[in-house]
Amino acid sequence: MPDTLSTRLRAYAEVAGQLDVDAVALVPGPNFSRALGQSFMSMERPFLVVIPADKPPAAIVPNLELGSWRHVGFDGAVFDWKDQTGYDAAFAGLMDHLNIKSLAVEGQVMRVFVHHALKTAQPDLRIIDGEREISGLRMIKTPQDVAALRKAVDISERALHRTLDTVKLGQSEKQIEQMLIRMIFEEGADGLAFVPIVAAGDNSAQPHAHARHDYKVKAGDALLFDFGAQYDGFSADITRTVFLNHLSDEARDVYDTVLRANLAGLAVTRAGVTAHEIDDAVIGVLEASPYADRIRTKTGHGLGREVHEAPYIMRGNMMALPAGTVYTNEPGLYELGNFGVRIEDDVLVTEDGYETLTRFPKELMVIPC
Amino acid sequence: MPDTLSTRLRAYAEVAGQLDVDAVALVPGPNFSRALGQSFMSMERPFLVVIPADKPPAAIVPNLELGSWRHVGFDGAVFDWKDQTGYDAAFAGLMDHLNIKSLAVEGQVMRVFVHHALKTAQPDLRIIDGEREISGLRMIKTPQDVAALRKAVDISERALHRTLDTVKLGQSEKQIEQMLIRMIFEEGADGLAFVPIVAAGDNSAQPHAHARHDYKVKAGDALLFDFGAQYDGFSADITRTVFLNHLSDEARDVYDTVLRANLAGLAVTRAGVTAHEIDDAVIGVLEASPYADRIRTKTGHGLGREVHEAPYIMRGNMMALPAGTVYTNEPGLYELGNFGVRIEDDVLVTEDGYETLTRFPKELMVIPC
Repeated sequence: MPDTLSTRLRAYAEVAGQLDVDAVALVPGPNFSRALGQSFMSMERPFLVVIPADKPPAAIVPNLELGSWRHVGFDGAVFDWKDQTGYDAAFAGLMDHLNIKSLAVEGQVMRVFVHHALKTAQPDLRIIDGEREISGLRMIKTPQDVAALRKAVDISERALHRTLDTVKLGQSEKQIEQMLIRMIFEEGADGLAFVPIVAAGDNSAQPHAHARHDYKVKAGDALLFDFGAQYDGFSADITRTVFLNHLSDEARDVYDTVLRANLAGLAVTRAGVTAHEIDDAVIGVLEASPYADRIRTKTGHGLGREVHEAPYIMRGNMMALPAGTVYTNEPGLYELGNFGVRIEDDVLVTEDGYETLTRFPKELMVIPC
Repeated sequence: MPDTLSTRLRAYAEVAGQLDVDAVALVPGPNFSRALGQSFMSMERPFLVVIPADKPPAAIVPNLELGSWRHVGFDGAVFDWKDQTGYDAAFAGLMDHLNIKSLAVEGQVMRVFVHHALKTAQPDLRIIDGEREISGLRMIKTPQDVAALRKAVDISERALHRTLDTVKLGQSEKQIEQMLIRMIFEEGADGLAFVPIVAAGDNSAQPHAHARHDYKVKAGDALLFDFGAQYDGFSADITRTVFLNHLSDEARDVYDTVLRANLAGLAVTRAGVTAHEIDDAVIGVLEASPYADRIRTKTGHGLGREVHEAPYIMRGNMMALPAGTVYTNEPGLYELGNFGVRIEDDVLVTEDGYETLTRFPKELMVIPC
């Protein structure tokens, strides 16, 4: 099937049918970019495409975006609105035009003010959260998607290699973070997948740490990097934990445990494995270790246009992963006040097994500095 | 009044009182960071602080954030939840604990899945959009806020000067954008306020253009930069439009018109002016020109922790701006297929008038290259 605007929109119309609602709505974000082939900003301005199960799509477009909108090639009805007059009339016009009773929205993307505008225009509209099914269309990556992810990973890894070459005792986490960011852009990133986590010593025990201005790295520290470049709309997400000059026996054992967990997840990965099975293999290794009380997170998440997307790799999620899924395998062990270790790969599920898009070494790395 | 967690939370409790609801809810984002003094990620994980009008606050915290949460010093009830078990029980526990009937949320920040989780836990909960009042607390900038904004602007302007020194005919928009990004980080930014707009020729006529790989800048082009550094949680937002080597008489006249509109807005700015009056002054100049059909946007928006925040500077918004407000004055004229000009300053409203935080020259600039 050719990848055109109309075939892409058709797929969302089919989701409406599956969910037994009259239409699917998309707002700027990853699904919107994928569906329309172009990304848009939303911020305080509602911007919406509604794709009915069995009628032509229609859209609400902020007037100032009409120029960019032309390039999309959308041939449905467009209700535009200007800052000066507000958007109530556009919503009323859209709902009148559509004549629908129920709508599935992206619960993780649509904000409450758009939900309210829809309900104001049509109080009896039934709105359900179709996040899983709508974003599910992004789960199987196309060859082009994978190529963009590879490039994002490649940029990230080159930036990490170059950054590690510059790390010196006495630098602040913030200084190391700034160097990493600079290298990511020098290597050709379009943007950052997210604000990098550069965390040393006790800060590495925070899964979502912030780099500190006032902490200087010292010998024996764990130094955790969790970051990614963005390239052509896709995000890498890689974590490596290195040690500076030396490490304790405890740290060595923890590192080995996390690495074994990561490898156990890879070992069960192939098309058809459930998210539950992967998490169970990974967390099982951690639970069987002396560090079970340091488990804080699930194994990982899908990766693509969003840094966190379906499938979520956790026990209880019985979704079978098709070939073409990309997920993060990122076990970690965290002891507050002590240190943490996380190792994160970006993994492409294939018919026969898997391919790790991340190629940065995972063997214990002690950086002389 | 000392700036402590408890005085800050108290202010949100007062908003609940003003809105005649039982409580205000905050989710990760600018208000959350301001209230708690620390920023958090949310992504697919609900994270919520509820501040009742007349009871202690309570929170839902993803288990993996408990380590960072400790540093907040929050002494209300905390309902944490783990990926493995989900968040339904935490929401049920929170709503049971709070015993409230109505809740104001940040409509521009909270996503629908959190709204649904609240309604699932308590179907009769009345949820209203309190965005304006909640975010209104950020409108008057503290001296620390202004210092962070100044620094963000300063970094941005140095990056633009350095970038302009490197522009050459034949470079792609994308190459120029990459240079700008690199300079922003080299000058000390924590991040980008948003993906920069670097748009030449006809692309400058798109208010939200994307830099193109395949367009090479040429003599006579308008070259528009709209970008900002992020520093210590605050974002700059500056636009300058320059011309390469020479420009047409039409472009010169358009530039002059936009500059006069910008200055007209500054001329009426002082504490107590309404957003309507500023926009009226700015748009009035554009409307009186031969280019009235090229008007596409309002004058601007508040600026601070968010790139776009209250107050929105547009006709019909009768809000009087208090001293300490920072807004963008960014008139533009855009002709699709031809070119666009925008000039954007970041303006601090003072008792007696204003101070432009942006100092980059606004006089017509023709870059020899």
